[in-house]
Amino acid sequence: MPTNRQWILRNRPAGEIGPDDLELVETVTPELKDGEALVRNIYLSLDPTHRIWMSDQEQYLPPVRIGDVMRGGTIGVVEQSRDAGLPEGTIVNAGLSGWQDYSVVHEGVARRVPHLSGMPLTAHMSVLGATGLTAYFGLNDIGKPQPGETVVVSAAAGAVGSIVGQLAKLQGCRVIGIAGGPEKCRWLTQELGFDGAIDYKAEDVSAALSRLAPNGVDINFENVGGEVMNAVIGHMNNYSRMPLCGMISTYNGEGPIPGPTDFGRVLMRRILIKGFIVIDYLPRASEALSELEPLVASHQLKWKVHVVEGLENARAALGRLFTGDHDGKLLVQVSSEPRNA
Amino acid sequence: MPTNRQWILRNRPAGEIGPDDLELVETVTPELKDGEALVRNIYLSLDPTHRIWMSDQEQYLPPVRIGDVMRGGTIGVVEQSRDAGLPEGTIVNAGLSGWQDYSVVHEGVARRVPHLSGMPLTAHMSVLGATGLTAYFGLNDIGKPQPGETVVVSAAAGAVGSIVGQLAKLQGCRVIGIAGGPEKCRWLTQELGFDGAIDYKAEDVSAALSRLAPNGVDINFENVGGEVMNAVIGHMNNYSRMPLCGMISTYNGEGPIPGPTDFGRVLMRRILIKGFIVIDYLPRASEALSELEPLVASHQLKWKVHVVEGLENARAALGRLFTGDHDGKLLVQVSSEPRNA
Repeated sequence: MPTNRQWILRNRPAGEIGPDDLELVETVTPELKDGEALVRNIYLSLDPTHRIWMSDQEQYLPPVRIGDVMRGGTIGVVEQSRDAGLPEGTIVNAGLSGWQDYSVVHEGVARRVPHLSGMPLTAHMSVLGATGLTAYFGLNDIGKPQPGETVVVSAAAGAVGSIVGQLAKLQGCRVIGIAGGPEKCRWLTQELGFDGAIDYKAEDVSAALSRLAPNGVDINFENVGGEVMNAVIGHMNNYSRMPLCGMISTYNGEGPIPGPTDFGRVLMRRILIKGFIVIDYLPRASEALSELEPLVASHQLKWKVHVVEGLENARAALGRLFTGDHDGKLLVQVSSEPRNA
Repeated sequence: MPTNRQWILRNRPAGEIGPDDLELVETVTPELKDGEALVRNIYLSLDPTHRIWMSDQEQYLPPVRIGDVMRGGTIGVVEQSRDAGLPEGTIVNAGLSGWQDYSVVHEGVARRVPHLSGMPLTAHMSVLGATGLTAYFGLNDIGKPQPGETVVVSAAAGAVGSIVGQLAKLQGCRVIGIAGGPEKCRWLTQELGFDGAIDYKAEDVSAALSRLAPNGVDINFENVGGEVMNAVIGHMNNYSRMPLCGMISTYNGEGPIPGPTDFGRVLMRRILIKGFIVIDYLPRASEALSELEPLVASHQLKWKVHVVEGLENARAALGRLFTGDHDGKLLVQVSSEPRNA
């Protein structure tokens, strides 16, 4: 059996993830039982929620236990199989199979990745994966955009935010993105067609919204929490909606994540706030993909991946999500794509 | 023309409403123009939102201007009329016609109060008025109760809360009320059929919820804000709903009303929070009344009014809303009901 490297959670991080919190160990892959397949992981998705899974705060899945392989979504190729439904060579989404070279899966967990001509495998780990579904369902199911409305998205140059903004533009909305740094802001307005971008590191977000969203904000697609969230809420209109996707600015903090500083506005403006987690929408994935796939194929929807080479670099790479030092959906290349993928 | 006493807003209160903030003055009612009618107010509704209207915080209607008559909803009788649609003797809901003996209205503002046999006029200022509509739409339109779900309502012995709880019971929910003091709690469980009541002045709300809502909370009908809100949110389930009706515990405070201390739970539990104001639902009033009227007529829905005699006592009476020192929907009797009302 091949050697398997695994990242093991050793400690719950205090603040930023430290070198002692995750340890890379070597083991061997187990013998397969009937109905199982061995997947060689090709790409590991790194997501803000990994920081939550490392903690023992209140969350939507059980925290990763100390001593367990770190949880994470992967795409891989079946290398050995005792499951007729998963023949060798099949490219599969292996579910939350973890930060490791190999995963043992069975057909109920692993989903065959459809072959879309001309579409790189990384698309299935980003715009056509959980990232795209998060953007699509948060915007449409909760935000319910109407043509002419103003949509603000934070972490707008991030994997989810950049898709949210483009989808809202396609639906006839005015779209303002909030991102860190002039390069990201330029990308939003010049490449993605956003109507405006706010560099939260250089500008007062509220003042910029007064200028760029003079009619107020109808949808706040919330990715960051904290002060940026408060600034946007201060501009939200009557009957506006706030899909609460994440609050990444708070994940390295201690204690509970504070809510809006001006909750009176939620009442007075009849604002809807709805937390959501993409796993709830997986049963409806085909609904989103039937819209996203043609948009991707026709290049109406742009997307980027930032691939870090080598499983051994996963821990360090995860930190980039919190500093913003990455350019597109963050993936770790665990092993090579098969020639025919 | 008759003399008219009016409560004039003189200052925006700092904290509790003080004696200098509202002044009772005497004036005369103006000559009617064509299309106008003079209404002698019979009942004035006192509501928590009056405290908001006195402030200049962000709100859903313009603040009452300094020097203007204090805003408030009334029911009255037409005494003089130059509007054929509002003949003398008609009992009308005079809209937000203010804290005064007489109001000048026209047909677009005043709505005829339907004559319901055996129903006192005060019912139209409570269970069949804005109070009942608030309870009905907040619970059903936002809360969407399902049989077997657990509903928690704060300020549960209050005008809105007591109706919310009874409506939820009628829909097959488990209902827990939060109120101040053993008498109110007894009324909830022994008279209104609540499954449990928590005296927030005597008990730890979170500990009591662990006991009384062991399966968690599916709907939190939020009337009070602050610590009680935070305690309930800590028990809210996946996919639970929080109709945000009011936050009375905060209205005498300074500065913005703080949001939940654990906003991470809103994300992780996919909680829906929706602020609402009953005026948005007035166009749908008949939908609610068609359900509420038979329940009131058949005594399936219980309700109480607390009538304070005399317009001159309105200012002092309003303070009772914030101390809880009242028993039912708080009304001021401004003048007598007509014999045939």
